[in-house]
Amino acid sequence: MDVNDMVMVSVDDHLIEPPDLFHGHIPDRYRDVAPKVVRKDSGADVWVFNGQTIPNVGLNAVAGRPKEEYGIEPTAFDEMRPGCWDHDERIKDMDAGGVLGSMCFPSFPGFSGRVFSAADDKDMALAVLRAYNDWHVDEWCGSHPGRFIPMGLPVLWDARLAADEVRRLAAKGVHSVTFTENPKELGYPSFHDPSWDPLWAACSDTGTVLSIHLGSSGRLAVTAPDAPIDVMITLQPMNICMAAADLLWSRIPKHFPDIRIALSEGGTGWIPYFLDRLDRTYDMHHLWTGQDFGDRLPSDVFRQHFLTCFIADPVGVQLRGMIGIDNIAWECDYPHSDSSWPSAPEELHEVATAAAVPDDELAKICHENAMRWYSYDPFAHRAKADCTVGALRAAAGDHDVAVRSYDKGRFEISRAGADLGRLAEQATA
Amino acid sequence: MDVNDMVMVSVDDHLIEPPDLFHGHIPDRYRDVAPKVVRKDSGADVWVFNGQTIPNVGLNAVAGRPKEEYGIEPTAFDEMRPGCWDHDERIKDMDAGGVLGSMCFPSFPGFSGRVFSAADDKDMALAVLRAYNDWHVDEWCGSHPGRFIPMGLPVLWDARLAADEVRRLAAKGVHSVTFTENPKELGYPSFHDPSWDPLWAACSDTGTVLSIHLGSSGRLAVTAPDAPIDVMITLQPMNICMAAADLLWSRIPKHFPDIRIALSEGGTGWIPYFLDRLDRTYDMHHLWTGQDFGDRLPSDVFRQHFLTCFIADPVGVQLRGMIGIDNIAWECDYPHSDSSWPSAPEELHEVATAAAVPDDELAKICHENAMRWYSYDPFAHRAKADCTVGALRAAAGDHDVAVRSYDKGRFEISRAGADLGRLAEQATA
Repeated sequence: MDVNDMVMVSVDDHLIEPPDLFHGHIPDRYRDVAPKVVRKDSGADVWVFNGQTIPNVGLNAVAGRPKEEYGIEPTAFDEMRPGCWDHDERIKDMDAGGVLGSMCFPSFPGFSGRVFSAADDKDMALAVLRAYNDWHVDEWCGSHPGRFIPMGLPVLWDARLAADEVRRLAAKGVHSVTFTENPKELGYPSFHDPSWDPLWAACSDTGTVLSIHLGSSGRLAVTAPDAPIDVMITLQPMNICMAAADLLWSRIPKHFPDIRIALSEGGTGWIPYFLDRLDRTYDMHHLWTGQDFGDRLPSDVFRQHFLTCFIADPVGVQLRGMIGIDNIAWECDYPHSDSSWPSAPEELHEVATAAAVPDDELAKICHENAMRWYSYDPFAHRAKADCTVGALRAAAGDHDVAVRSYDKGRFEISRAGADLGRLAEQATA
Repeated sequence: MDVNDMVMVSVDDHLIEPPDLFHGHIPDRYRDVAPKVVRKDSGADVWVFNGQTIPNVGLNAVAGRPKEEYGIEPTAFDEMRPGCWDHDERIKDMDAGGVLGSMCFPSFPGFSGRVFSAADDKDMALAVLRAYNDWHVDEWCGSHPGRFIPMGLPVLWDARLAADEVRRLAAKGVHSVTFTENPKELGYPSFHDPSWDPLWAACSDTGTVLSIHLGSSGRLAVTAPDAPIDVMITLQPMNICMAAADLLWSRIPKHFPDIRIALSEGGTGWIPYFLDRLDRTYDMHHLWTGQDFGDRLPSDVFRQHFLTCFIADPVGVQLRGMIGIDNIAWECDYPHSDSSWPSAPEELHEVATAAAVPDDELAKICHENAMRWYSYDPFAHRAKADCTVGALRAAAGDHDVAVRSYDKGRFEISRAGADLGRLAEQATA
């Protein structure tokens, strides 16, 4: 397949919340306490909420920078491409990058909205969370019908409220809710606690996928405070296998046969080994541990319930048959440093060509699996011929995607430090 | 290759320390304080040392039991096959299992001897550790020349003493020293601290491999206290990738070009993804993180310094070319529950046949890589024709390897509980 004929739907990108997000969505009585952007004397923009300051407004939003200037920056809106926080500009960047559809994870609230859930005033927390979800669905996604896969933030502190919110969002056409890799790490009941059942039931009933992003447990893969940051970068995608094992062996797939879970930004090359390990563990141990999947193997259960994704994983593409060709989706990870935007289609095309992936399998990876798992139909809004990489780039015209250097002076502290202690503190704050 | 013609050398097995281990090895002045086996009223045998009781003398030493009776048992010597703790019986079990050579990790001291290193009286700790090493080399291995790959326990609290012990052992023909996945987790300096340099220098000078066993950080892969134990069993081998990343990006391979590290019981199916992740991390990030491997890629560095191993990993065998055929060894894991003893050769043969592994590559996996990495030459003691699976089994005669049920009543507490909290406590005690 020619790269220009590919149709690209990304199941993992990120948005940086714009400062005016809550305007028009938060009830008047909570307007003063809703999250706000404050510019610090240092020039950094930070979100302030519930007595907490969330630093690094644009954590790792480095799209368009030279690699020398990657880092956990930027810390201010004017250090990022506008496509990070402005939906009209995002669409231009998607067009120029050949990306038809995108599901965007949150930034400052944490991947599973833990910043909102931490507020003591739960009525206020729920109002803030709903305002966020309404903004995401109605403005971010609603402004460009068919271009975004809408996704809600979950209520972490009350499974019945969480179920209500999933059903409320489903009525608005939402089929994805973010969740954490491990609720226990965030101070909530574990995946093994039946108290979550109302949420799993709501997801099952509404065809809503639990989209679990790596790093959403709040625990970073840090080996030692003096370890180079490369260690954490390497390990981060491998950590999500803890969540996969935790969920696979839990009561959830046994009690909720329709539950579906996406391992967002989790990569795929480790899955064949993981599936073999699951089946071997079952074979060797289930007689004394008491696990019982009836006439199925754990790997069958995995393929029924889990969607995986990758950016451009040569090992995963080669082993796609061992993973399950219906269980693999593509992601762009815009605007983070792992992304190859704006040439991500070429990167995947190269990997797929090297592995001799047939066109029908490549179509599943590029968009068909994402569409089916997330009940997402972009072609209802735009003829398929206008959705290809080539067509979108033609529409983008001369939109500027040049790599551009930023003011490096402002990045010195965190870049030079590679300060894992501070990073870990932020991640778990 | 016929299974009877294979020559099997296992780079990861386990011994259960016999009660009389320290007799004749510990100096008289420490005889009263050396570790001792005590039989509790419950019938359990425990080691007592330094005011600490180490439970589960035979942690997971379940060889020869039916799978229904697997568990973290047994807790007493009479619940185990004598081959677990008696070297003559071990040789019979190896013969019957078709295994020529074996490297045996310790049990009650912890994989890296942390129980000894925790003693406040460091002179005594050193005497105990040296007595253990002398017993291991002179008695366990020395009783049957050419049948065991000797391995020392490290001094964790002082890198110069650790280096001295490595050199002392090397003079006795030892080319392996166990180490921990993460010294920082045990309260010592991390892999990134130059204070360890004398030890790395001693290993480099003497051709001693750092054999790092999974689980040796004292940290179990536990997601939640109420998680089924299957989660931990599944995840345990994947955790060693943290150690691999920590070491790969550390200063050690840069400063010690001859250092060699074995990822014991680490499996192999995850390695291709890991190597790709290393190279991608380097490509995307080294310009700002400052990593510099000159004209090599991180995957080249890995293949130069790291030995991997597996029990019977279909994914790893299929992907052996992406791992490095000179970097893969076989392990039996006797007497633990992951082992397929006494039919482990058949298990590997089946996997190798399915993957159409050529004879020369199978020989590397079965014994040649282990011999080269560990400077181990069994053929100096026995003609190669007498070392095959078939020849060893013929020599074993009618040695009893029947699967046999044990008294289940005594296992109820830990088997029924799958009590991860208690298990984690034991692991880190």
